[in-house]
Formats: sequence, structure tokens, C-alpha cells
Amino acid sequence: MPEAEFWYEFASSYSYPAAMRVEALAAERGVALAWRPFLLGPLFAAQGWRDSPFNLYPAKGRYMWRDLERICGALGLPLNRPDPFPQKSLLAARVALALDDAARPAFSRAVYRAEFGEGRPIDAPATLGALLAEIGVAPEPLLARAAEDANKAALKAQTARAMALGLPGAPCLTTADGEIFWGNDRLEQGFDWARAHGAAAGKEWA
Amino acid sequence: MPEAEFWYEFASSYSYPAAMRVEALAAERGVALAWRPFLLGPLFAAQGWRDSPFNLYPAKGRYMWRDLERICGALGLPLNRPDPFPQKSLLAARVALALDDAARPAFSRAVYRAEFGEGRPIDAPATLGALLAEIGVAPEPLLARAAEDANKAALKAQTARAMALGLPGAPCLTTADGEIFWGNDRLEQGFDWARAHGAAAGKEWA
Repeated sequence: MPEAEFWYEFASSYSYPAAMRVEALAAERGVALAWRPFLLGPLFAAQGWRDSPFNLYPAKGRYMWRDLERICGALGLPLNRPDPFPQKSLLAARVALALDDAARPAFSRAVYRAEFGEGRPIDAPATLGALLAEIGVAPEPLLARAAEDANKAALKAQTARAMALGLPGAPCLTTADGEIFWGNDRLEQGFDWARAHGAAAGKEWA
Repeated sequence: MPEAEFWYEFASSYSYPAAMRVEALAAERGVALAWRPFLLGPLFAAQGWRDSPFNLYPAKGRYMWRDLERICGALGLPLNRPDPFPQKSLLAARVALALDDAARPAFSRAVYRAEFGEGRPIDAPATLGALLAEIGVAPEPLLARAAEDANKAALKAQTARAMALGLPGAPCLTTADGEIFWGNDRLEQGFDWARAHGAAAGKEWA
């Protein structure tokens, strides 16, 4: 089965529609999907940015919000801007990483729905605990696990891998043969690539 | 008939596949298209950039070239990087603007084909003159017209209008109701919008 990795950042606006769409697209195309939460902060800092480029460059920011409004409108997704934008996403990323693989997608969607669907802050442990409870995970043990040094180190390592892969932003889809597809609008192309080239690679090995 | 404006910059890499596709898409969807060459330099300078963001931010640049390679591959368009990138595009933009509306698309495609298809520099009057001759326009009078103060002022005004519209980059499609669609990958969406909302606006006026 072809494989792809979905790289997302909870503060990233375009990661919201991507997270809502990505699982159905992977299933349609028969691609096995791994969810990879990471942090954009270190990537941005490496480019000299201390804030979201959508705040640093107002024309880009105005365009992004309108573009996102059209995208969410077409998908039937509610859109309410969180204040402030970007939200502090460190804790949400740690919680997402601490979860089992099977629970990570539902939790991640719940975070995005709260943040960009309802415009709610996502940095409080109580908020994230309530979202865990919603998806049937006991909040206290998971929040404790998220705060462990090993989990913090795992998120750092995952972010370092994102940088080593050369991800230019979030969301991204990456394939086993090293291709990067950046943006909610590249998901279909990324899955098509994974399918076409995953199959070709399989034949070469056989 | 619904209308749209196609905003492009000769130094812009993603404007190359967009320029090659845009006319057929407009025709398919029954949208009247105006070609609007402009300069990104003043937009970038307003954001504090003295070079292409694809050079300033290496991860973005590496991604863009690979992405463009995939896009051109899928479209059957040759791709050879001009050196240096970005090319000096001022003279090409002046020439494009000095042309009649009917000749502007063919000249613009010829410039992109030379620049990104063949990797040739596009800043020399002799090069642009040869491209004019290719499309059946006498080079000398047109190059003279391009150098006139009125034409230089018209390009400044067109670039000022791009900034006033809030274009975040190039290429863009803009519609009569003020929507912006940024990127080669947004052309279809932009034309669909122009068609859907152009028609709706027409009904309201009727």
C-alpha cells in the first residue's frame, strides 16, 4: 500500500481544511496515512521570522483570510478567526503526539474545529482536556504523558525531521520517495503521486 | 460576458505555466480576459524584500523549483531555469504594455517560453525584438514606443493599481466583484468564480 505523511501545525490556518479533508482523500486513493504534528516556529525562526508571515506581510494575510473563507465556504466548514492569531500551539502538538496513532486524527480535527471553526483559544490544558474527553480519551493521564520529557523530545525530533526534509511550511504531504506537496490545495496531487510512484517503486523491488 | 484580469510578472516563475494555460481556460469557461503585466519589485519592496522570496527563503525556493518541475512536467512544458533568477523584467513588461491588446498574449507567452522554457535572459532589447518579430510585430517602432514616457507611466500606474487591489504576488486572477485568486493553481477557481458571480451580478442589474 502506498504511504504518505501529513505534516500539520495547529496554529496554521490552511492546515484546518487540510486536516478535515485528508483522511477521506487518503482512503479514496488507497494510501496509508501517518499524521505528523510539528511546530512551524523553528522553521520560521530559521528564516528570520518572529511571527506568522500572514501577520508580517499584510497583503499575504488579507489574501489568506479571504482565500480560507472561500475554501471553507466551498467545503461547508465553519470559519471563525481565533484571537490572537496565530494561537500558541505547543501544548496541542504535544498532546497530539502523546496520543496513540489511532486517536491522533480525531483529536487533531477536534482542535482545528475549536480553533478555526469556533474561534476558540487552544492553549489551555482545560480546553485540550475537554477535547480529549470528547473523543473518548481520559484527559488527566494523557495530559501528564504529554508533559513528559520523552514526549517533549519526540516533538522536537519530529520538528527537526520536518526541517531536514525541507518543508517550506504547513500543511505538507510527503511521500516515501521524498516528494513534498505544500498546501491544502496540493493534497490531491500528493496522494496521486504517492499512488503512482509508490506502485512503481513496489514493482522495482519485486 | 463575465470578465477577469490576469496579472503577471515576467520574472515570476509560477506566472510561466499560468500564462501558458490562462487563455484556453478563459475560453472554455466563456470569460473575457484582460492581460495585465505589472512589476512585483514595488510590492516586494513594500514588504521589505530586496530579492525574490524564493531566493531569500531557501526552503521556499527549493520547494518552488521542484513544484514547478512537476507542474511543467504534467503540462508538457519545457523548464530550464534562467540565470540569474529572477530575470530583470522591466523592459519586457514595458514592451508587453506597449503592444495592442490583441498581440500582448502571444508576446507574453513568447517571453516566458524563452525565459523559463529555454532558460534565456530576457533583459536585452535584441532578444525582445526577436520575440516581437516572431509574433509578427515590427520590433523597432514597438521598442521605441515602449521607451516613451507615457508607456513608462502606464506601467507604473498598472503596478500601483495592483498594489491598490492588494495583490499578494503573481500570477493573480481578479474578478469584477473584487476577488483575488493568487497562483497558477487558482486559475480554474478564479474563472469559475467570475462565471458564477459575473452572471449573478448581471441578473441583479437586469
